Amino acid sequence: MRTKVAIIGAGPAGMFLGHMLAAAGIDARVIERRDRDYVEGRVRAGVLEQVTVDLMHRLGIADRLVAEGLIHGGTNLSLDGELFHIDMAALTGGSTVTVYGQQEVMKDLFDAAGPRGVDIVWNAQDVALHDVDSDSPSVTWTTQDGEPIRLDCDFIAGCDGYHGVSRASIPADVLKTFERVYPFGWLGILADVPPAEHELIYANHERGFALASMRSASRSRYYIQCALDEKIEDWPDDRFWDELCLRLGPATAAKVVRGPSFEKSIAPLRSFVSEPMRWGRLFLTGDAAHIVPPTGAKGMNLAVSDVTMLGEALAEYYGSGSTAGIDGYSARALARVWKAERFSWWFTSITHRFPEMDGFARRLQMAELEYIKGSPAAQKTLAENYVGLPLEAA
Amino acid sequence: MRTKVAIIGAGPAGMFLGHMLAAAGIDARVIERRDRDYVEGRVRAGVLEQVTVDLMHRLGIADRLVAEGLIHGGTNLSLDGELFHIDMAALTGGSTVTVYGQQEVMKDLFDAAGPRGVDIVWNAQDVALHDVDSDSPSVTWTTQDGEPIRLDCDFIAGCDGYHGVSRASIPADVLKTFERVYPFGWLGILADVPPAEHELIYANHERGFALASMRSASRSRYYIQCALDEKIEDWPDDRFWDELCLRLGPATAAKVVRGPSFEKSIAPLRSFVSEPMRWGRLFLTGDAAHIVPPTGAKGMNLAVSDVTMLGEALAEYYGSGSTAGIDGYSARALARVWKAERFSWWFTSITHRFPEMDGFARRLQMAELEYIKGSPAAQKTLAENYVGLPLEAA
Repeated sequence: MRTKVAIIGAGPAGMFLGHMLAAAGIDARVIERRDRDYVEGRVRAGVLEQVTVDLMHRLGIADRLVAEGLIHGGTNLSLDGELFHIDMAALTGGSTVTVYGQQEVMKDLFDAAGPRGVDIVWNAQDVALHDVDSDSPSVTWTTQDGEPIRLDCDFIAGCDGYHGVSRASIPADVLKTFERVYPFGWLGILADVPPAEHELIYANHERGFALASMRSASRSRYYIQCALDEKIEDWPDDRFWDELCLRLGPATAAKVVRGPSFEKSIAPLRSFVSEPMRWGRLFLTGDAAHIVPPTGAKGMNLAVSDVTMLGEALAEYYGSGSTAGIDGYSARALARVWKAERFSWWFTSITHRFPEMDGFARRLQMAELEYIKGSPAAQKTLAENYVGLPLEAA
Repeated sequence: MRTKVAIIGAGPAGMFLGHMLAAAGIDARVIERRDRDYVEGRVRAGVLEQVTVDLMHRLGIADRLVAEGLIHGGTNLSLDGELFHIDMAALTGGSTVTVYGQQEVMKDLFDAAGPRGVDIVWNAQDVALHDVDSDSPSVTWTTQDGEPIRLDCDFIAGCDGYHGVSRASIPADVLKTFERVYPFGWLGILADVPPAEHELIYANHERGFALASMRSASRSRYYIQCALDEKIEDWPDDRFWDELCLRLGPATAAKVVRGPSFEKSIAPLRSFVSEPMRWGRLFLTGDAAHIVPPTGAKGMNLAVSDVTMLGEALAEYYGSGSTAGIDGYSARALARVWKAERFSWWFTSITHRFPEMDGFARRLQMAELEYIKGSPAAQKTLAENYVGLPLEAA
C-alpha cells in the first residue's frame, strides 16, 4: 500500500490534518491504535481559540459548533474569592474563545471523515515507523485479525500524543526535551448543572486553585487543584462541592448549582517540549511534541496550530514542489509552541498554590493579580494569549 | 528638645521627607549616624522615575537635574547579543525616566537643606527609638562629643535603611517579613567613558546578565552578573571589559569605549519586604521597609514614593487634624511596594542566568523575551512599570 502522508493517530491533531489534506486533494491515511468510541470518549479540553474555530469553518465542519458553541468574550480571575472580569474582546479588538468540548470536535471530525474522504484505519496494533530519515519511509502495523500491513509514504505526521511511537522514532542524540512537572494535579468533575457564571473563573485561593468551566449552558466542568497522591474515592461529590465553593468564595459559591457528577478524574500537570518537530520525513504535531498544563486551555489549540502550519507546508510542497514550508515547519511551530508554553506555565504559576511556596512567593502572586486588575496593558497580555497568539509568519 | 517629626536617616528617603515637611511648614529634624561626605559618597542608583523627578520640581531643587539629567524615552533589551528597543514614551503616552545619579540627588538635597530650613543632625551615635507605640515617642542619641540627646516628637519616620534601628524597633510578633535572596551578585564599574548606547541595555546572555548604564554622556556604569563568591581583585578592568563585551554581543561591543574604572564593587541582590510599614507613631519608608534587586532601578524611586505618601499624610494631619492619611499610609505604600517588588523580581528573573536553571527555564526566558519583542501589550507592561506605576489613590 502507498499513500502520500501517513498520519499516526486519530486525535484532534491527526483528524484535523487528515481533513486539511483531504480538502487539498492530498492522499493520506490516518492510522489509529484504538477505535472511534475510545477516542471520542476521552474527556479533554473545552475552550477553542479562534485559530481552531477558523479551521473548522474552513473545513466546513462548523455547523454544530456554530449552533451549540458558547462564544466567550471574556473570562474571570478570582483572588481569595473576589472576582475580576477580563474583557478579552474589548482588549483584543474583538477576539473571543468558543466553549465546545473536545469530544464534540472529535464527533464532528469523525462524522465528516467518510463524506470528505478522510481514510482512517482503526485498531492498528504495534504501529511502527521505518526509515523516517530516508526518502522512502513506511509505517507498519498489525490488524485486529493479526494481518501485518505495510504502508509506504512520502511523509509521516506523528499525531499520536505524548506516549506515541512517533517521537520515540527520533534518535535520542537528535531529540532535545524540556520538561517541568508540577507538584499537584487537577481533580475534575462533569455534572449536568448550569454553570455558576456565564464565563470561566480561574480562582487563586489560599487553599489552592479552582476552575469553574463548562461544556454548555447545562453542563458544568469544575476543577480543584489537589495533591498528586489524592484518591478519587476520597472525594465524594459533597466534599468536592464544598471545597470548590470555599475556593470560589461566598459570592460565587451562592451561584454554584450542585448535582451528581458523571465523570470524576485526577490529571497531573506537565510542561513538555521536544525539539526538533521534524526529523527527516517525520513531522511531530500536538501532544507528540509538547504538553502544556491545562491552565488556559492551550493543549488542543496548539495541536491545531501545528497541523495548520503542517497542512499548509504539505499543500505547498505538493502544489509547487517547494520544500520551504516543510523545511521551516519545526522552527515556525516551535516559536508559537514556546510562547504557549510560557503562557500556560505563567498562568499556572500565578493561580496555583505551590507546596514550596513561601510568603514572598504568595505575595508576588497577589501583587501580580492586583497589577493585572489595575493595568489594561497587563489584561491585554493575558487576553491576547488566552484567545491565541497569531500564527507565526511562515 | 522637641520636634513634630523625627526623621531617622539622611539618605534619599529621609532628606526628601525633610524637604517635604519643611515646605509644608512642619517642624522636623533629620538624625543621621554618619556625616554628609559619607552619605553623599555612596554610589547607588541612577535612573529616576517621573514620581521622583516631579517631587524634585515641586521642592524647587530640580535646576541641576534639568540641566544635567538625561531624559530617556526608551530602553533596550538584548537576548544573546541581539538588541531590541522598547519605546517607553510612545507606549505610555509620553512617560520617561531621567538618568541622574543618586549622588547628585543627595548633593541637591543637602545643598538646599540649609536655605530651606531642613535641620540635620550629623554623626548621631547609638540612635534609639522609644515608646513608638505611645502618644509620646522620643529619639535618643549621643553626639560625637559624647553628649546624650533626647528628642521628643509626635512621629518618627524610619528612613534609616535595611540595617537601621527603625524596623528593629517594631516588635517581632507584629512584623512580618518576606524575603528572596538571589544566587548571584552584580559586579559594577564606573568609568569616565561615553556610554555604548544612548539608552540602557538589559542583556540576557547565556553567560549571564549584563547591564549597560550611564551617569552622564561621558560617564558609563556597567554591570555584569557574577557569582556571590567572586573577588574584586580577580576582575582587573580588562577582564571586566572582555566579559561585558561578550555578553552585550559583537554589535554593541563594537560601540563600547573602554577606559580605567574608578569604582568597582560587587553587590548582592535581594528582595525584602516588611509589613506593616507603620507601628504606632513610627512609619517606615524606603530601604528600612523593603529592598528590591537593582534590575529596573526601583530602589530609590520606591523610597521617594513612600515619603511622598507619608509627607502628604503628615501634611493632612497637621493641616486638618485628620488621621485618615497616616492610618492608610501602610496599606497605600505597600500596594505600590509589592507591585514594584513583583516587577523587580520579574525583570531579574527574565534577564539573569540562575545556577539551578534547566533547559526548560532557559527556553521560557527566551520565549518571554521573544513574546515581548512581538507584543506591544507586553512591551507596555514593561514600560509602564519601568517609568513607574502611578501612586496608589490615597
